[in-house]
Amino acid sequence: MGGEGTTDGASTRYHGTGRLEAFSDGVIAIAITLLVLELSIGEEVTALHRVLDAWPSYLAYLVSFATIGAAWLAHTSITDRLEKADLGLLRLNLLFLFAIAFIPFPTKLLAEELDVHQAADERVFVTLFGLTLLAVRVLLYALDAYARREAPFAVPDDRDDVRTGIGTVLVAYGVVLLIGLLTPFVAVLLYFLVAVVLIVPFHGMRGLLSGRRR
Amino acid sequence: MGGEGTTDGASTRYHGTGRLEAFSDGVIAIAITLLVLELSIGEEVTALHRVLDAWPSYLAYLVSFATIGAAWLAHTSITDRLEKADLGLLRLNLLFLFAIAFIPFPTKLLAEELDVHQAADERVFVTLFGLTLLAVRVLLYALDAYARREAPFAVPDDRDDVRTGIGTVLVAYGVVLLIGLLTPFVAVLLYFLVAVVLIVPFHGMRGLLSGRRR
Amino acid sequence: MGGEGTTDGASTRYHGTGRLEAFSDGVIAIAITLLVLELSIGEEVTALHRVLDAWPSYLAYLVSFATIGAAWLAHTSITDRLEKADLGLLRLNLLFLFAIAFIPFPTKLLAEELDVHQAADERVFVTLFGLTLLAVRVLLYALDAYARREAPFAVPDDRDDVRTGIGTVLVAYGVVLLIGLLTPFVAVLLYFLVAVVLIVPFHGMRGLLSGRRR
Amino acid sequence: MGGEGTTDGASTRYHGTGRLEAFSDGVIAIAITLLVLELSIGEEVTALHRVLDAWPSYLAYLVSFATIGAAWLAHTSITDRLEKADLGLLRLNLLFLFAIAFIPFPTKLLAEELDVHQAADERVFVTLFGLTLLAVRVLLYALDAYARREAPFAVPDDRDDVRTGIGTVLVAYGVVLLIGLLTPFVAVLLYFLVAVVLIVPFHGMRGLLSGRRR
Repeated sequence: MGGEGTTDGASTRYHGTGRLEAFSDGVIAIAITLLVLELSIGEEVTALHRVLDAWPSYLAYLVSFATIGAAWLAHTSITDRLEKADLGLLRLNLLFLFAIAFIPFPTKLLAEELDVHQAADERVFVTLFGLTLLAVRVLLYALDAYARREAPFAVPDDRDDVRTGIGTVLVAYGVVLLIGLLTPFVAVLLYFLVAVVLIVPFHGMRGLLSGRRR
Repeated sequence: MGGEGTTDGASTRYHGTGRLEAFSDGVIAIAITLLVLELSIGEEVTALHRVLDAWPSYLAYLVSFATIGAAWLAHTSITDRLEKADLGLLRLNLLFLFAIAFIPFPTKLLAEELDVHQAADERVFVTLFGLTLLAVRVLLYALDAYARREAPFAVPDDRDDVRTGIGTVLVAYGVVLLIGLLTPFVAVLLYFLVAVVLIVPFHGMRGLLSGRRR
Repeated sequence: MGGEGTTDGASTRYHGTGRLEAFSDGVIAIAITLLVLELSIGEEVTALHRVLDAWPSYLAYLVSFATIGAAWLAHTSITDRLEKADLGLLRLNLLFLFAIAFIPFPTKLLAEELDVHQAADERVFVTLFGLTLLAVRVLLYALDAYARREAPFAVPDDRDDVRTGIGTVLVAYGVVLLIGLLTPFVAVLLYFLVAVVLIVPFHGMRGLLSGRRR
Repeated sequence: MGGEGTTDGASTRYHGTGRLEAFSDGVIAIAITLLVLELSIGEEVTALHRVLDAWPSYLAYLVSFATIGAAWLAHTSITDRLEKADLGLLRLNLLFLFAIAFIPFPTKLLAEELDVHQAADERVFVTLFGLTLLAVRVLLYALDAYARREAPFAVPDDRDDVRTGIGTVLVAYGVVLLIGLLTPFVAVLLYFLVAVVLIVPFHGMRGLLSGRRR
């Protein structure tokens, strides 16, 4: 599949994006689901206190879940545009998956640190977390650039604003990373805000309200 | 695929539900399989006692496994109806997957608590567990409403009763949640009962007995 | 897909086996890969001794890996025969996946017990392990019976001997379960033997030697 | 699918490679993502020291991630060539997946050992790690030989150099295994080098620079 429409010579066969998508979905699904293994509750006296006391691990969990979810959304909007996957794309995609699969580690460190709350250490862990999110977005940007070059005349679709947003989010993460060097906790909240904006179905609600589909 | 039959303008391309289904299957499969990692046995003297003594973790495991399995069934019956997935659906689906991927955490807490069996704490953990199951069902209800709006004239199929049941199960979970505030352990048994009713193949047996297929 | 060839009335839509296969592949793949998390090495003095000393966990790992792999093979040979999946099949399949996803737990217990090697306890753990494997095979048998009823005239294919073997392996597991009540360790070796026979590519080698393909 | 073009008698049905690819993608995706669970940081005084002090676990993580990623690339280039999967191939593939799913275990041992850094033990763990990587490559070689026999006249495609490289990498791993018996740490660096060469998108960059596509 996908081999017919290529502009390359007829003697070279290119492959569809099936396995690239399947493998990516697998890695992203596992990374996003493994996050739950790090959740645990404190040693407080009453059950309610123990559950509420673990808020830092919930916050870190929420940020990472929403961030990986948003990256998956952007990834689908990129690969849907493509009809074939060459070696260069597959390898670039492996680097992207490396950044995604790494996220549970800085998330764990962040959750532990938000709990202890020591200013100097917090800066280190929030920055490591931010660098990982930035790497995810840099690699999404590279994948998108690759896809645009391969399929420059693709029909516009309803996820074009996701694709348009890739550059904007990249810049936002860079700014939050710098903010994190000054006030780490504010940076965590901003990472959360960015992720919420990216995954809450405002678009769908807008469509619903305007009766777009009727 | 799925782009032809849309009622929107020809200049907008919509996407099939392939990756939505693949990613959902991935997250649900991982969440349902990770549950086993929390199983462990006690420190009793004989092996048989150690295995039997761990019944609370088995009960929690069974309830969560059956609940996630039932949610998967309902999810397939919803997405099978759809031929395309827009951004709104993808984001709503991410919220659904968030609730699914979270289940192993309240399951772990519930298993630990059923073991210790302290009335006040049990109430907290059973309620947290129930709220998670309720969230899964609220989001299934929203996904179903979305799907019905997108494909209002879909041909009836053999899973329509699953879809019809989504609202009923939602109400049932709300009632059990309230029961859990009074008698937590009874609520756990009721959650188990609901899940069993949802996944045991009565339908298939009925089909077998009536010779529907012959 | 798969809806055209049904013998049911035209007003009912049936679904393909796509999501059943994808979800099953997910759960089986996760269960088979999670097994590695239980591997660990002892506290011996030299590294070589530490690695070799952990043989019980390797043995349990090998048996479970090969058993799940063989179950996957049998599962593909069953679902490949089907063109649609009704509710009954989906629910029966969930029970099968429950048995598969449970395997890492008795595997962990078995590995720990083979290490300690206490006769009475070993009997309990080997029997629990055997009951799980038996349950997998009973459910494969039920799935196969369901599939044969749905598609009685399917064209013979090269995996028919896998399907034929499902009943034989079921009986074998029953016998080994009884042997395990007398001599637990011998039962573990027999479970290993059965699994090796089921996954080693004798068939492929035979095909290679007889030059079947050219 | 895939049954039409076979050269076998019309009475035998062969199956497509769909489930082989899906199951393989699942196992490989899980193995590559589980690696992150073994990452942890030290007990140093400052956060930065704790993060940097854990370099051995990062190195082992990087090597294994890149190695599994490279094995996935080679696997796609092999199965893309095939249109059907017989029992022999499925079983050979299970052995390949066994080696892949095992990788997190020697990776964990290697990370722990690089941390302690004791010459004699290091030799044992680096050799165990190398033997696992070698087994992955031997099985890829066998899968490739199988595929070449099944589809000897496949159209050349842009991943032929990946396939050509399978034998070369096999020899390289054999040589590094021997080097590891003398100087274990150098072997780890060489395993890393091989993996980097295999997954960094040089090919894509070359294509970009030469303007191959326009």
